[in-house]
Amino acid sequence: MTTAAAPTGNLEITVSRAELLRELTAAQSVVERKTTIPILSNFLFEATVGEGETAGRLTITATDLDQSLRTSCAAKVKKPGACTIPARKLYDYIKLLPEGEISIKLMDNHWVQIRAGRSNTKMVGMARANFPQVPEFPASGAYKIAVPSLKNMVSKTIFAISNEESRYTLNGALLVLKAESMAMVATDGHRLAHIEKTGETLEGISGEKKTLIPRKALAEIASLLGSTDAETLDFADDDQTLFFKIGGRVLTSRKLTGQFPNYEAVLPRENTKFVIVRSEDLMAAIQRVAQFADERSGAIKIRLEQNELKLSSSSTDAGESEDTIETPYNYDPLVVGFNSQYLIDFLKAIGTQGEVRLEFKDAQSAGQMRPEDGNEDVKYRYILMPMRI
Amino acid sequence: MTTAAAPTGNLEITVSRAELLRELTAAQSVVERKTTIPILSNFLFEATVGEGETAGRLTITATDLDQSLRTSCAAKVKKPGACTIPARKLYDYIKLLPEGEISIKLMDNHWVQIRAGRSNTKMVGMARANFPQVPEFPASGAYKIAVPSLKNMVSKTIFAISNEESRYTLNGALLVLKAESMAMVATDGHRLAHIEKTGETLEGISGEKKTLIPRKALAEIASLLGSTDAETLDFADDDQTLFFKIGGRVLTSRKLTGQFPNYEAVLPRENTKFVIVRSEDLMAAIQRVAQFADERSGAIKIRLEQNELKLSSSSTDAGESEDTIETPYNYDPLVVGFNSQYLIDFLKAIGTQGEVRLEFKDAQSAGQMRPEDGNEDVKYRYILMPMRI
Repeated sequence: MTTAAAPTGNLEITVSRAELLRELTAAQSVVERKTTIPILSNFLFEATVGEGETAGRLTITATDLDQSLRTSCAAKVKKPGACTIPARKLYDYIKLLPEGEISIKLMDNHWVQIRAGRSNTKMVGMARANFPQVPEFPASGAYKIAVPSLKNMVSKTIFAISNEESRYTLNGALLVLKAESMAMVATDGHRLAHIEKTGETLEGISGEKKTLIPRKALAEIASLLGSTDAETLDFADDDQTLFFKIGGRVLTSRKLTGQFPNYEAVLPRENTKFVIVRSEDLMAAIQRVAQFADERSGAIKIRLEQNELKLSSSSTDAGESEDTIETPYNYDPLVVGFNSQYLIDFLKAIGTQGEVRLEFKDAQSAGQMRPEDGNEDVKYRYILMPMRI
Repeated sequence: MTTAAAPTGNLEITVSRAELLRELTAAQSVVERKTTIPILSNFLFEATVGEGETAGRLTITATDLDQSLRTSCAAKVKKPGACTIPARKLYDYIKLLPEGEISIKLMDNHWVQIRAGRSNTKMVGMARANFPQVPEFPASGAYKIAVPSLKNMVSKTIFAISNEESRYTLNGALLVLKAESMAMVATDGHRLAHIEKTGETLEGISGEKKTLIPRKALAEIASLLGSTDAETLDFADDDQTLFFKIGGRVLTSRKLTGQFPNYEAVLPRENTKFVIVRSEDLMAAIQRVAQFADERSGAIKIRLEQNELKLSSSSTDAGESEDTIETPYNYDPLVVGFNSQYLIDFLKAIGTQGEVRLEFKDAQSAGQMRPEDGNEDVKYRYILMPMRI
């Protein structure tokens, strides 16, 4: 981990409040929430002027040691230099200032003066030297990934990542890059979300590149992708770190160690009984019936009979509930139990516009759900272990 | 506490989902949140048909013993009767049902069947006999109060009510009714909000009627007033209970005991130094400066000098902040400290449209704030104890 020669003088700059706020908004979610290491609650501000340039830049860095974000905005740099400022306080304060120019100046004892209009504030910063170095984006070896495709893949898988801290190889989603396709997979051992996008040309990939991306990084990526106009992002990694360059912002994330499970083994191949229903109808029916599911397990029953999908639940405390959806079905009757919340998670991910296809084998085997959207380029499937009911 | 002869049969009715949901929404906030007394987590449903009538009514009652709400909606009553239904579960379930007719039927063992379209649910109720009787609105002796006036008085005082449970005479606002005016006062011992509306004709009042209304009841009243088209409400009381009839809904509240403090003694009479500022400017400046107030006390300093209002704060952790507003001021300079949150509470209550007038005597005396709105009928004042700074 090295950084380019960093400025160390007594920073003195002027920035536009709108631009500063935009970048602080992007950076603040990476700031450490706990305050066990005080410097991690701060932003690092570095003001530089390029050789022969008149306009300068303010670079803003946030890190919690697992992740870091570096971003920048235009600044009038009176004195190049660096300082650190309490992130949360600064962000809240800048939000409360009216539009206009803000001047920022490093004073003695790491105090930082913020002035705007008739407002004048001094904040207690810390020594710049205490701020940890963050990894630099590698000079070579980056891949270009289409922003809309990655955005879609993240939103369709992130909810299936395990919440159990101990299962650390499941605390992320696996990104699989090939020369002409990419895929993302997430699982918590009870359900698995898998999405594959074909028709992508990924330069520099030979064979297959698998990368496990931590949930926290995926959430940051989703947020950064949501506020960029860029069409592609640059992705790179080294032994310890993942790098994502999105517009002018660089997110780094420490890699997760360990082996992601062999998910291909659990993809169902014999789920020949299927039914197609409107997502909206299914969502509404599941939400109603889930009210009366056992609180701990959330289990509800799906019963398929002649042209009918029946959902039901019962709990000793609350009562019992049943909902019926009419739909073509002509296979043998089937009853299978699932966690209602897992079903809802998937329906939220696909939205309630179109139709959804439910595919089963029997009451002991995993069920599979897919959007019935006729999209040939994107194959999205959600696999759910059954519950004993 | 008596109720009219209540129906006890096996209730069987049909209601419109929209009407039922509207009344459940009004009633659910009165339902007990804790579950120490299970029956209080239930709604009481009573279905009746008037003599010679074809259409019937469903009466819905909720109570937490301190308060009760009774409301009703039209129903097709197949069998008059009564049942109790878990309030939260029912409310959540009805919200999830599509528009249309809902049929409700009492089954064996206090189970209640709810059917709508292809949805069929049975909920576990409790015996109707366990539901406590709620006080009935008195047959005579009610006062008519204008809805807009009361709504305004509640919103301008409720935030100043004490949060300390032990100071039970401060856990409500005092309503003062006179023949041609009404007023409301609330205080927590540190600040006091007082609003008086003249030009109201209150029939049946001779002299002055003072009533202490608990905060919880005020919050319910505010919510009920927010969703009524009625121009007046009926207010009555007996030894133990306050009654408010708003549209077709009756709220009751157990009275608070004890003596409300003699607030008239604290109203400042010699606050001759004043300044007028735009509420919006003052709010913005206070919010900024409050970021750097001592976290425990929230204290900020107001400094009045030649044509200038200065706000400032400092905290050992966060730093210090200052904001200046230019405004005519020609009295002796003055510095006085206040709790920033108390100032913000008042500015929120008056909104940020107009101007506000701040009136002071000296650094040891209470300050007074008033909207500078030229409204002769409504006199609103907010009195704030100073803080040592």
